Amino acid sequence: MRAFHLTGGGIDGLELRDVPTPEPGAGQVALRVEATSLNYRDLMIARRLGGDRIPLSDGAGVVTAVGDRVSEVSVGDRVAATFFVDWVDGTPFAAVHDKARGGTVDGMLAEVVVADAHSVVPVPAGWSSAQAATLPCAALTAWNALMEGRRLLPGQTVLLLGTGGVSVFGLQLAKAAGARVIITSSSDEKLERMRALGADVTVNYTAEPDWERAVLDATGGVGADIVLEVGGAGTLPKSIAATRFGGEIALIGILTGAAGETNPFPLVTRCQTMRGVYVGSRRMFADMNAALEANAIEPLIDRVFPFDQAPDAYRHLTSQQHIGKVVIDHT
Amino acid sequence: MRAFHLTGGGIDGLELRDVPTPEPGAGQVALRVEATSLNYRDLMIARRLGGDRIPLSDGAGVVTAVGDRVSEVSVGDRVAATFFVDWVDGTPFAAVHDKARGGTVDGMLAEVVVADAHSVVPVPAGWSSAQAATLPCAALTAWNALMEGRRLLPGQTVLLLGTGGVSVFGLQLAKAAGARVIITSSSDEKLERMRALGADVTVNYTAEPDWERAVLDATGGVGADIVLEVGGAGTLPKSIAATRFGGEIALIGILTGAAGETNPFPLVTRCQTMRGVYVGSRRMFADMNAALEANAIEPLIDRVFPFDQAPDAYRHLTSQQHIGKVVIDHT
Amino acid sequence: MRAFHLTGGGIDGLELRDVPTPEPGAGQVALRVEATSLNYRDLMIARRLGGDRIPLSDGAGVVTAVGDRVSEVSVGDRVAATFFVDWVDGTPFAAVHDKARGGTVDGMLAEVVVADAHSVVPVPAGWSSAQAATLPCAALTAWNALMEGRRLLPGQTVLLLGTGGVSVFGLQLAKAAGARVIITSSSDEKLERMRALGADVTVNYTAEPDWERAVLDATGGVGADIVLEVGGAGTLPKSIAATRFGGEIALIGILTGAAGETNPFPLVTRCQTMRGVYVGSRRMFADMNAALEANAIEPLIDRVFPFDQAPDAYRHLTSQQHIGKVVIDHT
Amino acid sequence: MRAFHLTGGGIDGLELRDVPTPEPGAGQVALRVEATSLNYRDLMIARRLGGDRIPLSDGAGVVTAVGDRVSEVSVGDRVAATFFVDWVDGTPFAAVHDKARGGTVDGMLAEVVVADAHSVVPVPAGWSSAQAATLPCAALTAWNALMEGRRLLPGQTVLLLGTGGVSVFGLQLAKAAGARVIITSSSDEKLERMRALGADVTVNYTAEPDWERAVLDATGGVGADIVLEVGGAGTLPKSIAATRFGGEIALIGILTGAAGETNPFPLVTRCQTMRGVYVGSRRMFADMNAALEANAIEPLIDRVFPFDQAPDAYRHLTSQQHIGKVVIDHT
Repeated sequence: MRAFHLTGGGIDGLELRDVPTPEPGAGQVALRVEATSLNYRDLMIARRLGGDRIPLSDGAGVVTAVGDRVSEVSVGDRVAATFFVDWVDGTPFAAVHDKARGGTVDGMLAEVVVADAHSVVPVPAGWSSAQAATLPCAALTAWNALMEGRRLLPGQTVLLLGTGGVSVFGLQLAKAAGARVIITSSSDEKLERMRALGADVTVNYTAEPDWERAVLDATGGVGADIVLEVGGAGTLPKSIAATRFGGEIALIGILTGAAGETNPFPLVTRCQTMRGVYVGSRRMFADMNAALEANAIEPLIDRVFPFDQAPDAYRHLTSQQHIGKVVIDHT
Repeated sequence: MRAFHLTGGGIDGLELRDVPTPEPGAGQVALRVEATSLNYRDLMIARRLGGDRIPLSDGAGVVTAVGDRVSEVSVGDRVAATFFVDWVDGTPFAAVHDKARGGTVDGMLAEVVVADAHSVVPVPAGWSSAQAATLPCAALTAWNALMEGRRLLPGQTVLLLGTGGVSVFGLQLAKAAGARVIITSSSDEKLERMRALGADVTVNYTAEPDWERAVLDATGGVGADIVLEVGGAGTLPKSIAATRFGGEIALIGILTGAAGETNPFPLVTRCQTMRGVYVGSRRMFADMNAALEANAIEPLIDRVFPFDQAPDAYRHLTSQQHIGKVVIDHT
Repeated sequence: MRAFHLTGGGIDGLELRDVPTPEPGAGQVALRVEATSLNYRDLMIARRLGGDRIPLSDGAGVVTAVGDRVSEVSVGDRVAATFFVDWVDGTPFAAVHDKARGGTVDGMLAEVVVADAHSVVPVPAGWSSAQAATLPCAALTAWNALMEGRRLLPGQTVLLLGTGGVSVFGLQLAKAAGARVIITSSSDEKLERMRALGADVTVNYTAEPDWERAVLDATGGVGADIVLEVGGAGTLPKSIAATRFGGEIALIGILTGAAGETNPFPLVTRCQTMRGVYVGSRRMFADMNAALEANAIEPLIDRVFPFDQAPDAYRHLTSQQHIGKVVIDHT
Repeated sequence: MRAFHLTGGGIDGLELRDVPTPEPGAGQVALRVEATSLNYRDLMIARRLGGDRIPLSDGAGVVTAVGDRVSEVSVGDRVAATFFVDWVDGTPFAAVHDKARGGTVDGMLAEVVVADAHSVVPVPAGWSSAQAATLPCAALTAWNALMEGRRLLPGQTVLLLGTGGVSVFGLQLAKAAGARVIITSSSDEKLERMRALGADVTVNYTAEPDWERAVLDATGGVGADIVLEVGGAGTLPKSIAATRFGGEIALIGILTGAAGETNPFPLVTRCQTMRGVYVGSRRMFADMNAALEANAIEPLIDRVFPFDQAPDAYRHLTSQQHIGKVVIDHT
């Protein structure tokens, strides 16, 4: 079978190789990968990671073989792989980092992947593999942020920063949950797209640099219940100011990792919580899929590239012109 | 001002009297009641309670005067009264029973009511007093059952028994929260109404006496996540059987109080929870109102009676032909 | 190796057989079992189960071999097996019943057992295998009841019914957690033992048949925060009456399964929760072990039988004269 | 009656004045204050606040009169006042800041105080007013940090930074709850005192500047479950590093407010929560008092000053030589 390998030279170092087709051992399944999708994390890994790693955390396909002692799935099932191989349910634990697909272990940019049976989850009914491949990292991060901490109630307000993959899924999931959504962007065109997807309030942060005031104005001075903080440098103090007394700031991600320093102590007198959100467990993934099905949500896909042109998919993501997920079709 | 008083003779004993208009003390407000609504509890209280009590827990109106040290509300605000006078937020406590409107203390079937400021809540924006008067008991019970225990997630399944006030609000709130709804009734006509309101699966329990099988069939054999158990005699074993492993049965109400005995021990091997739900707190009421507003929910009102004909409203409720709330217009 | 097998004839049908020593596959470990312990469940299984099953859920020993892809444990580790093979962490699910040791799958009454690596847990530091063998069913049930539902706070009150295995562990764990403990028994001698273990209030229910009154008296009329309901026929209405407004009744077990019917509806007006507790997950087991270690708890062992005399251990349990766990020494 | 007033000149500006004795209105009680205690907050308020304010949040005394409609307490009850007048139970809300004793409203450094009945709580049985006066701010902050967020389990590990009032109560409460305690200080003498109070591990951060390593070493490399972060400048990154995957950093207070900036993003990949803790509600206070009673905890009192010498009590606190609370005796 064929698989792309990172070799240390960034996107240009991606090599498509013929490698032996892996076979599932006890407790494992083999997948014929039908689609993958990209996240910013994949760009950063491509830049930083040397060695010899099959990239991409996100992928979906069909089970073609099962090893001994597998009861969860059967041959022919359409499944997505989980971001963390070993976070099945419950409390997160340090060792999950040891098996993060496309990072610390091989990922999905291959024709065939062998996965532990506890690390795959049936795709939502009626979803194609291309659609399901968008879910493992960005969508599950949004779900975890909204539903696994303070837990969003209908009628509460969610603040989304920017229109990246996590924010778009956050918008769709929050609206499905009966919440109000405020979203920011520097592009009126993107904000228009967000309104079409259901956003209640949009804020152009170029036009309104004090966008936290706009959030307070839109919430009767109270602030958002939950903020998905994916913003990058300098947004956190504004996010805290835009969050209600007792509310939660879900800290997400790679972009924000470069955000530099901030004073977290306004959290104290506002009784707020800041929660680190790092993708999620298989159980969360299954719960999310039920929500996607029940609410007929469709993922926003920006563009689909054929398998052979995976490096171009990376380059397209780099351009930041997309809105929605960039998908690679392996079929 | 005028107020109806229960005098011990059931519905026929309701007396409309001229009484002194009450004045708010420190920490209190006066309301001009614009509408009230009825619950089965009110029928039972009318039958059982002697003495001299103004009935009805549910009412809404306009603040006409405030006493000293009131900051929560202002003259002119449209508010609903809470079922329990003293359950503001947090853990319930035994003494809430000492002040349950229309039961242990005077209720809302009056032209003017004085209420502690901590026992009123602004009505949802855009709602009339007639609409808001439907909320304090039935709607808040449904909200508490769905959102304050196991807490419903989008994509989960709610089972509603019958089409009474709690079930109809349960249906509307569960759909707003992105859940699937299964509802039972003995009337195909009522089930048709429920489908129009968004019910995903309807079960006529006369046609399907083993309705718990229908619930399992509609959930891939898994069962409902949360059941609003308002059913009356004999439904509880079926409700438990229709609930998923680890799910919750919200025990509600007066009707079920007559249900007789059951064996609760299937809960053990199914890791299920049965939670007694008794209306809710003011904070829950405010949260619910935000959800009603954000999701443009409108209460289902069966019929509105003028204030003078309040006894006829009681009689109409007795007939059980209604679907939706029975309201009394005080204006 | 040798193992006892249930053959359908009750305790007398226990057969000690020479069988092939099992080998661990991928993801599995082999244990040399050093000790097991008995629960009432084992008596009931012996009476009811035909076929050919190695009994007992509870056992501890030393890892003697590990299969491929095992990182959790190493050869030489002292571990206990979990009651449910597949409940690692998080939400319980129906399929856990499919692999309940000593019930739906083979148990621990053997010299060597092969177990999935995710179904064993290190024993508390300094504990012998005989001590650790007391934990998997009774102790974990008590932990789950106290710490995984409403969750006990220091200063709260726990009510324990009788002095069986779950109650004794419940007493030790509740005292370690800073709670007050009320315990009932028909034996003043057993109550004296419980006071020595830290019980704050003891109630002889023969002397005080209205023991719920004694609980209310000992709590200023408020009632217990959590009740471990293991009582058998007729205790549940009293347990509910002895529980505080908003409190939790943890429903436990086999004995109570025969309890017959009760009216659960007092739960409603008291805003109480009744939660089915069925042992627990491996994560709970590890958390409990940390608590046992930090608080220097020692299990109460009634008597230790040699492996060859396992049937006598069963008979001793039948006599109900014990207080503390009945252990079988496999070494 | 007499009361001290801040007049804008810092500690030296404290004036003892004769003022009219206040009378309780409806819903209020009058207290004869028997003792108060000091917190760092009081030093900062003395330095910063102008105007004319009676200082100190913490005080306890005896109810001498009750107004109309008061059922919670009676004349003769010994009670403590709550830090926030209006946070009774449940979700915190922005307006609690409007009535923070000794800050936004008058405090307890007076002979008589009138308080809303919902803002006092019975002292633990057997506690003197001097002892109870230590609780409202520091002890309740520690309780909230330990029990109201992630909620401490027996066997878990708590990290305490320094030996200030919150840390000492944190130590006592954590030990009562069956947890392990690690505590830091620059003074071996103070660490010795902490060991005498039950600390399991002590770390002199002068001798071990990389004290987060000592915490990891003492927890098998895992880290603490909960950190009470009161440390001041520069401790937060070390606190995060010393906290387990999925653990919680409770952000507390005034000292840390000057801490400057930090990078919160290690929280993300460690799935940690940082929670702002700002004292707590009356319900938490009552829960804590039950824990103090049940576990026979006694507050550590450094020194007691007579009422007339209140300014000296302030000066003593400034010296930072104390360990335990500084109390003022009003009797």
